[in-house]
Amino acid sequence: MLILMRTNATDEEVNDVCRAVTAAGLKPHPIPGRLRTAIGVTGNTSSEGHERFAGLPGVTEVIPVTKPYKLTGREMKPEDTIVRVGDIEIGGDRPVMIAGPCSVESKEQTLEAACALKELGADLLRGGAYKPRTSPYAFQGLGQRGLEILIEARAQTGLPVVSEALNTETFALVEDAVDVIQIGARNMHNFELLKRAGGSQRPVLLKRSMSATLDEFLLAAEYIMSEGNPNIILCERGIRTFNTHSRFTLDLGIIPVLKQATHLPVIVDPSHAAGRRDVVIALSRAAIAAGADGLMVEVHPRPDQALSDGAQALTLDQFAQLVDELRLIIPVIRRGAGVRA
Amino acid sequence: MLILMRTNATDEEVNDVCRAVTAAGLKPHPIPGRLRTAIGVTGNTSSEGHERFAGLPGVTEVIPVTKPYKLTGREMKPEDTIVRVGDIEIGGDRPVMIAGPCSVESKEQTLEAACALKELGADLLRGGAYKPRTSPYAFQGLGQRGLEILIEARAQTGLPVVSEALNTETFALVEDAVDVIQIGARNMHNFELLKRAGGSQRPVLLKRSMSATLDEFLLAAEYIMSEGNPNIILCERGIRTFNTHSRFTLDLGIIPVLKQATHLPVIVDPSHAAGRRDVVIALSRAAIAAGADGLMVEVHPRPDQALSDGAQALTLDQFAQLVDELRLIIPVIRRGAGVRA
Amino acid sequence: MLILMRTNATDEEVNDVCRAVTAAGLKPHPIPGRLRTAIGVTGNTSSEGHERFAGLPGVTEVIPVTKPYKLTGREMKPEDTIVRVGDIEIGGDRPVMIAGPCSVESKEQTLEAACALKELGADLLRGGAYKPRTSPYAFQGLGQRGLEILIEARAQTGLPVVSEALNTETFALVEDAVDVIQIGARNMHNFELLKRAGGSQRPVLLKRSMSATLDEFLLAAEYIMSEGNPNIILCERGIRTFNTHSRFTLDLGIIPVLKQATHLPVIVDPSHAAGRRDVVIALSRAAIAAGADGLMVEVHPRPDQALSDGAQALTLDQFAQLVDELRLIIPVIRRGAGVRA
Amino acid sequence: MLILMRTNATDEEVNDVCRAVTAAGLKPHPIPGRLRTAIGVTGNTSSEGHERFAGLPGVTEVIPVTKPYKLTGREMKPEDTIVRVGDIEIGGDRPVMIAGPCSVESKEQTLEAACALKELGADLLRGGAYKPRTSPYAFQGLGQRGLEILIEARAQTGLPVVSEALNTETFALVEDAVDVIQIGARNMHNFELLKRAGGSQRPVLLKRSMSATLDEFLLAAEYIMSEGNPNIILCERGIRTFNTHSRFTLDLGIIPVLKQATHLPVIVDPSHAAGRRDVVIALSRAAIAAGADGLMVEVHPRPDQALSDGAQALTLDQFAQLVDELRLIIPVIRRGAGVRA
Repeated sequence: MLILMRTNATDEEVNDVCRAVTAAGLKPHPIPGRLRTAIGVTGNTSSEGHERFAGLPGVTEVIPVTKPYKLTGREMKPEDTIVRVGDIEIGGDRPVMIAGPCSVESKEQTLEAACALKELGADLLRGGAYKPRTSPYAFQGLGQRGLEILIEARAQTGLPVVSEALNTETFALVEDAVDVIQIGARNMHNFELLKRAGGSQRPVLLKRSMSATLDEFLLAAEYIMSEGNPNIILCERGIRTFNTHSRFTLDLGIIPVLKQATHLPVIVDPSHAAGRRDVVIALSRAAIAAGADGLMVEVHPRPDQALSDGAQALTLDQFAQLVDELRLIIPVIRRGAGVRA
Repeated sequence: MLILMRTNATDEEVNDVCRAVTAAGLKPHPIPGRLRTAIGVTGNTSSEGHERFAGLPGVTEVIPVTKPYKLTGREMKPEDTIVRVGDIEIGGDRPVMIAGPCSVESKEQTLEAACALKELGADLLRGGAYKPRTSPYAFQGLGQRGLEILIEARAQTGLPVVSEALNTETFALVEDAVDVIQIGARNMHNFELLKRAGGSQRPVLLKRSMSATLDEFLLAAEYIMSEGNPNIILCERGIRTFNTHSRFTLDLGIIPVLKQATHLPVIVDPSHAAGRRDVVIALSRAAIAAGADGLMVEVHPRPDQALSDGAQALTLDQFAQLVDELRLIIPVIRRGAGVRA
Repeated sequence: MLILMRTNATDEEVNDVCRAVTAAGLKPHPIPGRLRTAIGVTGNTSSEGHERFAGLPGVTEVIPVTKPYKLTGREMKPEDTIVRVGDIEIGGDRPVMIAGPCSVESKEQTLEAACALKELGADLLRGGAYKPRTSPYAFQGLGQRGLEILIEARAQTGLPVVSEALNTETFALVEDAVDVIQIGARNMHNFELLKRAGGSQRPVLLKRSMSATLDEFLLAAEYIMSEGNPNIILCERGIRTFNTHSRFTLDLGIIPVLKQATHLPVIVDPSHAAGRRDVVIALSRAAIAAGADGLMVEVHPRPDQALSDGAQALTLDQFAQLVDELRLIIPVIRRGAGVRA
Repeated sequence: MLILMRTNATDEEVNDVCRAVTAAGLKPHPIPGRLRTAIGVTGNTSSEGHERFAGLPGVTEVIPVTKPYKLTGREMKPEDTIVRVGDIEIGGDRPVMIAGPCSVESKEQTLEAACALKELGADLLRGGAYKPRTSPYAFQGLGQRGLEILIEARAQTGLPVVSEALNTETFALVEDAVDVIQIGARNMHNFELLKRAGGSQRPVLLKRSMSATLDEFLLAAEYIMSEGNPNIILCERGIRTFNTHSRFTLDLGIIPVLKQATHLPVIVDPSHAAGRRDVVIALSRAAIAAGADGLMVEVHPRPDQALSDGAQALTLDQFAQLVDELRLIIPVIRRGAGVRA
């Protein structure tokens, strides 16, 4: 931690701050400068301390130095975490492909999608049974019936399934039914839900909030990991900016930075970021090229009849094209990245 | 709803879209233009429909026209909603002042603050018993013990209390203890919590998410109201932008727009927006001048010892100054605003 | 400057950085910590140095400490700068009111506006002769003829005039004609224009870019001031955010922070921020309440016939109402602020 | 254009708006709805009209439908524009690689970089002679001497050169010296400079402003093109968001949308977006994978001695690695994209 004093701070104020630092069990290192004094602080600092020292007379700013996340940080665990779901490895050598409709709408739609996706090479099936909707008047998902359909789709295809747990009330139902539990972007700060996920044996796919910084994203993962669940997949899905040409702005630049900061696998959801299917393939290629450990894309057998997010779902033909393109790109990218590492 | 066709859309495609609109029980009004055809759509449109039509061949964009919120909209209820808490009216003639520490830290701290604030003219006491913290390692609040302290503070001062309900698990405890239930910014999209608040008899203070648009903010209120609870107080608390000179950017421009769009009262929390106490008084004055129905400010008897957000808490002396300034301003503003209405 | 080393940096790397710091004529202060070493740097640091040290092996981050602006900073000149335009003082005891149409459209329109505004109590007349337009096909202003009309309006009313200098080519024409030269938001980073304004004898009204941080805003002013012109009026006019309820988001929170950071006067343009006239009065009141030294508002005798930005221009009646409201508020605010200072 | 009336608008108001539309030479198409009337407007609409109608009584919103750009739009010219620089085609089958130091610092540095980059496969050499710097105290470039060095580098290597024209004063000097004239992000709204570039015979590389929407970006290109210069290369270089993990947020999602909206080639500058060299390679791969027609990357023989932006410059070794990786990826991507088109 570095405490910056105002240019006109008195010696008395500098001494008071040093005393407060010492009283907190830390060690102050005053550095007198041309314009102002800075006080380096060493010891077991925490964010609580930042706030307290910021309020002292003569202090203009407190700059944290230690990263606020611990278990999720690469400094704690240098080697990559590989999340295993059956035979599938997420975070390993090969990027994974999670695909499926936004919502589970019916048995027919889901089975049709699942069988086709299996055929086309998807690794996991996604489908929402409980849907977080901005409007209380929008389709909220089939709920428990949706989970049953997913179980049947897995039985028919062998594809492990990913579905969102919306709240602690229905968490156990989702946990029992699925192979990977998704925590949605709007729940990234739902700390009770994060803790519940931290107590689960299932891997958790944690989506970045549309307004989360990198630190906040990793701290949300830290909530899960500090409760005992190390199997976390991070998912970038677009942040909110002034852009109007897409629903959100996909922040692919966070991927290489996350890969440095954390040992957890990082995947990308290009569908929600784009909000329009005609750019999903381009963004998918870009995500893999940026180093993502996988993709989660929305695919619907008949997007024009989808009950939610139809505009952004790929058709099955488009998904086939995407898989074809990635099949060619992935070995090249991974070879390239290999050279780099 | 307005459906815009691509410039090169065929007559066939235009006809197909019109047929799809009719099939959905709506009425299409094609408007051929110089460059492209637009199709006006009338009837009981919904956001579901938008998504579906956006996927049809030849369609370039679907522009919603109907507002997505209903019960919270002024078109539904032109007169102002006044939320009553004991004798206090929120949304009435006089802006209200909600003040208190960020967290309930101890009985001594809370009672000292409460008595002083009562003396200085606060209308309600705020204090967090359950604290949403970005880091799992930060002080999480006293929980149930904190609620007991708030009850005691109310008994001693007569001030009604506002405190945050963090999750559905502890909602009933908060509901029983407090006079106004706060839903925090990070929970604005916690739909289960919103529905639970909608089933409560207590007024709800709903904070705007740091990344919510006006429509999303009102739809979160709509979740509460559509469950039967009409006593909602909206609270602007700053949005996330590129600014670094303050923790968030207080969006005072939303106040007059909200006052047109909804009948619900709108208050402002300048403390969380600023993140630094030296600008809280200026922003408080500005919020009232912009037409806010009240303020919620953090005040701490000894901010430098606060366990959370100490840097942004006003001292009691600063709060006294703020109250003095507002006492002079409010009649003028309200008279001015009165002329305007 | 503080240089943070990686957690796994070697002693060798720390020593190399210290040597590089010394070689640059600065003094390193290594602070070994639990996890990593930080190196405090004192001496005459500059932003150039930051970049260079950031590239050294073992360095993870370089944190600047010294503010990058000098002449515009309050540390250099603690007392307020008052910009004088004839008898008018900007930055003095009384907030000033700059009003007028977006564009000078005709002699009749401008004189009608000017006479009415003079009558209603405006201090300066604004009007664009050269208009920066996003589209090359939009009305670009009357140019030199517009300046002549402004001169005539000043002659008839005695109001000093403010008008924008769009580029260095026409700068001298504007400079000769007007009393205050405006540099628009889109030109805040037009360094040649800033330097030209720095060589002028006229006061300069510098608008904040829609994406400028506080430091960047003051550095733009620094370009002007370092060329010899100390008469600068800063103008907040809204930043670009995800908001769609207003054209830009007015950042009133920057006012108290700017007033601490710089001695220059700070005014607010609520019209461009809002983009809609029905919120301009509320934002104007709020700006004054936040401590602004004045307002610049668009007023048009017949907004529905305006050639640019008609939707945001106040009518003369609305302007009269605004002046009435402010007449009551200002003494109270200034008294309040006085107590505070 | 679509004009939305308020829900409580009177028939009289609707008729008045229709009359105003007709008076402007346009045709109104009233569409009565359940809640409100919308008025479709056809004819030769312009943005001027939007503003005027927005001010009429009873109008709540005016929604433009026609795109504001014309010459740069794909609707006007469906086939791709290929910009030719000597033998190099930008926007053709093969993405181009523009590389070089941020600033021309000395003859030695520039020639060393140019020769190595030529060897490694760069197509064009970049280097700033006139540097736009946020601070007046930062290194401002070698100016005319820098241009001479670039000319010499071209003579030695055969690489065409790209350099920025900062203002109209020095435009002709740059124009005479270089093969492609760069307009920087901070000048995207410098309309005089855009017009000057529009009068040039040289291709123009136009960078997106850090806060520009897609429409604003294309309108800036429209300024150039409407003055007669059709050889424009668009360059995405990151937008300003709340992110702190990178200097700007690279918006790769705009690439496929731009490629639909305009016929102009689109390249990406990952260096300025990232601000740190350790993510430049990943972002470069991603940009190509997203469909970019080329890259502009900063490379410096000794980044730790760079006079500007050293922290983001690739070393020559890293550039070699990037070229190697792209050599493998490009054929695959282009084949994939080919399937798609």
